[in-house]
Amino acid sequence: MEKVSGPILLAAGSQVPRNYPANPHPFRGTSHFIYFAGDAIEGAALLLVDGKATLFAAPPDRDDALWHGPRPTLDELAALRGADAARPLAELPAVLAPLRARLATLPPQDAATAAWVTELAGREVRAGSGSALTREQDAALADAVIALRLRHDEPAIAQLRAAARVSTAAHVAGMRATKAAKTEWEVLSAMLAVLRAHGMDDAYGPIVSVRGEILHNGRHDGELQPGELLLCDVGGESPEGWASDITRTWPTSGTFSASQRAIYDVVLAANQAAIARVRKGTRYRDVHETAKRVLCDGLVQLGIFKGTVDGLLERGAAALFFPHGVGHLLGLDVHDMEDLGDRAGYAPGRARSERFGDRYLRLDRDLAAGMAVTIEPGFYQVPGILEDESLTGPLGADLDRGVLAKYADVRGIRIEDDVLCTEGDPEVMTAACPKLAVDVEAAIKG
Amino acid sequence: MEKVSGPILLAAGSQVPRNYPANPHPFRGTSHFIYFAGDAIEGAALLLVDGKATLFAAPPDRDDALWHGPRPTLDELAALRGADAARPLAELPAVLAPLRARLATLPPQDAATAAWVTELAGREVRAGSGSALTREQDAALADAVIALRLRHDEPAIAQLRAAARVSTAAHVAGMRATKAAKTEWEVLSAMLAVLRAHGMDDAYGPIVSVRGEILHNGRHDGELQPGELLLCDVGGESPEGWASDITRTWPTSGTFSASQRAIYDVVLAANQAAIARVRKGTRYRDVHETAKRVLCDGLVQLGIFKGTVDGLLERGAAALFFPHGVGHLLGLDVHDMEDLGDRAGYAPGRARSERFGDRYLRLDRDLAAGMAVTIEPGFYQVPGILEDESLTGPLGADLDRGVLAKYADVRGIRIEDDVLCTEGDPEVMTAACPKLAVDVEAAIKG
Repeated sequence: MEKVSGPILLAAGSQVPRNYPANPHPFRGTSHFIYFAGDAIEGAALLLVDGKATLFAAPPDRDDALWHGPRPTLDELAALRGADAARPLAELPAVLAPLRARLATLPPQDAATAAWVTELAGREVRAGSGSALTREQDAALADAVIALRLRHDEPAIAQLRAAARVSTAAHVAGMRATKAAKTEWEVLSAMLAVLRAHGMDDAYGPIVSVRGEILHNGRHDGELQPGELLLCDVGGESPEGWASDITRTWPTSGTFSASQRAIYDVVLAANQAAIARVRKGTRYRDVHETAKRVLCDGLVQLGIFKGTVDGLLERGAAALFFPHGVGHLLGLDVHDMEDLGDRAGYAPGRARSERFGDRYLRLDRDLAAGMAVTIEPGFYQVPGILEDESLTGPLGADLDRGVLAKYADVRGIRIEDDVLCTEGDPEVMTAACPKLAVDVEAAIKG
Repeated sequence: MEKVSGPILLAAGSQVPRNYPANPHPFRGTSHFIYFAGDAIEGAALLLVDGKATLFAAPPDRDDALWHGPRPTLDELAALRGADAARPLAELPAVLAPLRARLATLPPQDAATAAWVTELAGREVRAGSGSALTREQDAALADAVIALRLRHDEPAIAQLRAAARVSTAAHVAGMRATKAAKTEWEVLSAMLAVLRAHGMDDAYGPIVSVRGEILHNGRHDGELQPGELLLCDVGGESPEGWASDITRTWPTSGTFSASQRAIYDVVLAANQAAIARVRKGTRYRDVHETAKRVLCDGLVQLGIFKGTVDGLLERGAAALFFPHGVGHLLGLDVHDMEDLGDRAGYAPGRARSERFGDRYLRLDRDLAAGMAVTIEPGFYQVPGILEDESLTGPLGADLDRGVLAKYADVRGIRIEDDVLCTEGDPEVMTAACPKLAVDVEAAIKG
């Protein structure tokens, strides 16, 4: 409230229909509301004004007992959520009317709530438009919220650790399920079962794929053949809304081939080197550069690249096999605060690179204690990249396709951890998830 | 096309954001599009005009290879989906412009698609507004679609059977998981694992609850205590989009108490009697009445009610313990075509009763071969109902609360099957799911 010189409204969001209005997707409130209210309350809003926090929510009614179960009274709700008061939702328009001119708000994700906020605020607030805030008040609110949410406090860290712990168990269950599984679905099913048994939803659409080179592959109907690598990017969200994000890549047969093992160890080295750089004061773009450098160096060792690492990096070598960023913020959102575009991920005055590969980097801030980030280098053989002369041309014969052909059984590998920046050494919240090739093989064998 | 004297546009729908735009809910296309196109194609539309079906979809582009994997060409898509042609999405506005005046369409569920259709059609088409069609052309299209979708053809029936089969296996897995489970989440997790292993999503928000009397209880964090009943309403949706909807209720300890068993058998009798009435020509409201009558009769046998069944039913006795309808249409939607309100569920000239209990009946058509319905009577002790003098008053002393008190360990029981109306006997697609009390107990013991 100090940083925003006016009233603040944060809407919780509402359910969105799946195939008809009475059959909605599972409700997931807006993260900004959850951050302040501690829980998503469907259809509710939080009003911060004159140093007071007031929750506006639908009071319990008699139909609740039949359809939804008893709900707390408004006074109970205020006490539960640490608000100064809770008032019936119906009073909100009248309370807001005199405050509209200076009102700051952040766009909700669903259209129904956006329409409601539009009416309340007396100006258009489009769903999902947080990356293009045009009003000064809203921008000030976004910056104030980012300042709070960038560095996690102890209760938030406890949530992130819990999500990481359960997601780690899910990956181990997935490894164990692989030997008997015939399809990607079966492995994913074993992983989701662990999340659900702990009351966790997926924090994002899971990837469980033998086609690891397709970066956003949302299909899970592939059959597992011996000799393939299975890339699993699966993370849970704690019941309170905090995310984990883990990728492991393992051999369907339980043992890496020599070629798979060689590339795996290069990616692992990049992962470990990048993690070691998660220290306060380090610029995150430099962590990305470290991953690229170690990856490139490893590929030189294998003979896939020829020449000096500096020269190779200058010519875009790393992006040929590692076209995405090394990671992103992690918090209530798996890409934390990405509803605000790059405002959260990029420090003021910094912007995305236009270079292929680097332009997908979602974070470029100086790290600070309390920030949680992912570290997720990868190696992918994407035909669309390796056949693109505009990308491979600068490498010329320094990309040795003859040597590369020996690694044809490596479609895609990614190794991703959740890392907390501290006052000292980085805390790898996902450290218990098997990562060394021998540990992964042991986990698959059970 | 014969029944709608003009061009028809059906939009497939698009992803909706979960907590930020790049992290959407799993995409679920609109059922009307899936029905005709055989699959949901994100952002696509189907245009039916002059006896031809044309798909409009985004052509594959080079980014697909990196992010989403290869997609079929438009010609391949047309062949796959049985369309006469497929054209780039960008051509749709120009193709539609001269057709707008007579265009018929059905409202999509998501706001982004609704805004797009609004622009294409040159008139407002609100998301999720299918229950309030105001244009004659749209109403004619809705009626034509309902006429097709009410009676399932053999491929659709095969889908429903597959969804029922896997959902049955999920319930058996849930029963088996109960003995070791400490929470509702763990049982649900075991059930969802079976669905996911077969590539099935939930067709609707699952209910797994020891508080069975809360009809739409979406929480799963309850602890399982010995002596309780666990009500599980969980159904899968086939990868092609067809739903199952099964409820079973079982004892957490593996054995029904005598009081639980007595009420269970009353609900089971109502379930069986109602199923036996799923025959072509029967009015579905009469199936509902049969369930009420058998339930009421059973409660008279137990001494909870006194007097004649006719007299009790007249005074609203059944709704005191069974306040919802006996079932609904089943198809691509778990409440099939409920996006069109009661237009699909209620025959022309029929409307919902205003009576408590009966007013929640979602279906009142004469059954016909090929129609799939659920049969789901229940018994619930809802404090909000049993303490409501306006509902219990007419029963007076004929509701024996002294006898009822003996059944205090029964909060809620529902037994729900998926039933296909045929030319002869009803086909219970969920017949393999344990239902007799002894079979349920045996399944829990494994």
